[in-house]
Amino acid sequence: MAQSDVLEQRADDESDKACNQGETPRTIHFDVFTLFPPMFLGALSESILARAQEKGILQVTLHDIRDYATDRHHTCDGYPYGGGGGMVMRPEPVFRAVESVLSRPSGWRLPEEANDCQLPPWNRDEPTILRQPVPIVLLTPQGRRFNQEVAAQLSRQRRVALVCGRYEGVDERIRTQLISDELSIGDFVLSGGEIAAMAVIDAVTRTLPGVLGDESGAYNDSFSDGLSGLLEGPQYTRPNAFRGEAVPEVLASGHHARVERWRREQSLLRTLKRRPDLLLRATESGQLTLEDRQFLSSQGWQAPTDPEGLFLS
Amino acid sequence: MAQSDVLEQRADDESDKACNQGETPRTIHFDVFTLFPPMFLGALSESILARAQEKGILQVTLHDIRDYATDRHHTCDGYPYGGGGGMVMRPEPVFRAVESVLSRPSGWRLPEEANDCQLPPWNRDEPTILRQPVPIVLLTPQGRRFNQEVAAQLSRQRRVALVCGRYEGVDERIRTQLISDELSIGDFVLSGGEIAAMAVIDAVTRTLPGVLGDESGAYNDSFSDGLSGLLEGPQYTRPNAFRGEAVPEVLASGHHARVERWRREQSLLRTLKRRPDLLLRATESGQLTLEDRQFLSSQGWQAPTDPEGLFLS
Repeated sequence: MAQSDVLEQRADDESDKACNQGETPRTIHFDVFTLFPPMFLGALSESILARAQEKGILQVTLHDIRDYATDRHHTCDGYPYGGGGGMVMRPEPVFRAVESVLSRPSGWRLPEEANDCQLPPWNRDEPTILRQPVPIVLLTPQGRRFNQEVAAQLSRQRRVALVCGRYEGVDERIRTQLISDELSIGDFVLSGGEIAAMAVIDAVTRTLPGVLGDESGAYNDSFSDGLSGLLEGPQYTRPNAFRGEAVPEVLASGHHARVERWRREQSLLRTLKRRPDLLLRATESGQLTLEDRQFLSSQGWQAPTDPEGLFLS
Repeated sequence: MAQSDVLEQRADDESDKACNQGETPRTIHFDVFTLFPPMFLGALSESILARAQEKGILQVTLHDIRDYATDRHHTCDGYPYGGGGGMVMRPEPVFRAVESVLSRPSGWRLPEEANDCQLPPWNRDEPTILRQPVPIVLLTPQGRRFNQEVAAQLSRQRRVALVCGRYEGVDERIRTQLISDELSIGDFVLSGGEIAAMAVIDAVTRTLPGVLGDESGAYNDSFSDGLSGLLEGPQYTRPNAFRGEAVPEVLASGHHARVERWRREQSLLRTLKRRPDLLLRATESGQLTLEDRQFLSSQGWQAPTDPEGLFLS
């Protein structure tokens, strides 16, 4: 996988720019390539993603790969060489769609009424040179794992292309010649990359400044820096008592420092119980304080061995 | 987490039943509880999920939690006790929605025109006893990891409730008293559980017999039994040559056994390169043949130490 060199490089450029220009508002444009554009309409039209688009922070352009197949039936798949079940996505329509769109400014799309004769010219035999490097991401269960860190990396891009494969398989040459990164949202198989693409758009967008009403919202999410990469602990709201279970007293105490300490301990406890792997990572990256580690020890946690004293803060 | 006892038990019942009755067609009904039902419309209306519904294999009923909030503004969230950013989902509307729906037959939903006075009676103080145990799954980044195995478990259920939290947090009592399982699709944070619920519905549904046109489709997916839990290797379709890259000769040879061997090796290679953790699992579960292991060794793989000779087939 020639993964994410483009991504890393752009990220650096962007953060340089942000530093130079002060508070440049960050925006992101997704070009989504799919055989089923209507799948996205619901997910993009509600709640936080709808508001991010209204605010001009998020822009999503949906491209129907089928529009770029030039045979009479707009065929986008074919039988696999070597036989076997399932169909495989053909290379030409995908190359043609992605290269046509990414060689034009963000927001460009094929006019609704365009027919086959009105497709932009395209060189079948040579790659189209793009003016700007844009990460071209294939959603596939064979990709590297998408997580909050990858979301943060992607959020520093101005423009990202998401290619939704049909998971029966895409022609390998799409991977080797066109795609710059492959992402998987988990070890399960979906009917196509569309739902995975929605997850990526959502997770990336909510990390951008101005998207959430409350700025501390994303910072204190599970896996985020505000929680040292740990899980979020229990939350309570009204009513104080529900079916015999009352809100813990400390939360109603108004004692800010005690509340913070309780929340930290609950976050540590939940992570210890459910995802001890995250504690290990937090330890290695020096995000656990001495107090954290003492609390965890009192709960039966065994700190990883530390021959070089790296974790002692 | 009082996770999945219900799930395991039902799974056993169902497979007994399937054995007794021969080829009982398997169907699944999802009750989805969300503040944003329209988010699902696109994803459920296209491609494989649409066809599964037409065939009667999949049924999805969307329930708007807001309909079950009885104050004038249909308030479903509140400020967190103890302060801090973000809002927390209140317990009553969620309990009322889930208990009202699950105590009625699959497919029941609140009539469109129902107003607050026409909500079914509900006991705020005592849990509603359900006639059938139904797994009540919260989608949350703090849950156990959803994967192909969990998809297979869920696919043996007749009815599953999916509760989409807002990820700023749901009141803890929803977790402790109502939810029977918590699932996460990955270590990233979404604006709500809706996209995760779509992923679960899709992954589960495509494992049901009759959903995919080609029965071998799901069996040979990445992570599936047909591939010993490994990643799928490269796939090719027409044209034979594209931008100087031809389809590997073996695939056009028509020699079935050679094609199968090549595919197996490519699957092993890709897994070795991208997800060596899956090779370890396949080794431990005895899914790698001697030939597989010899091939992997020739590619630089070091088999895990095997003091008890468990892995030698």
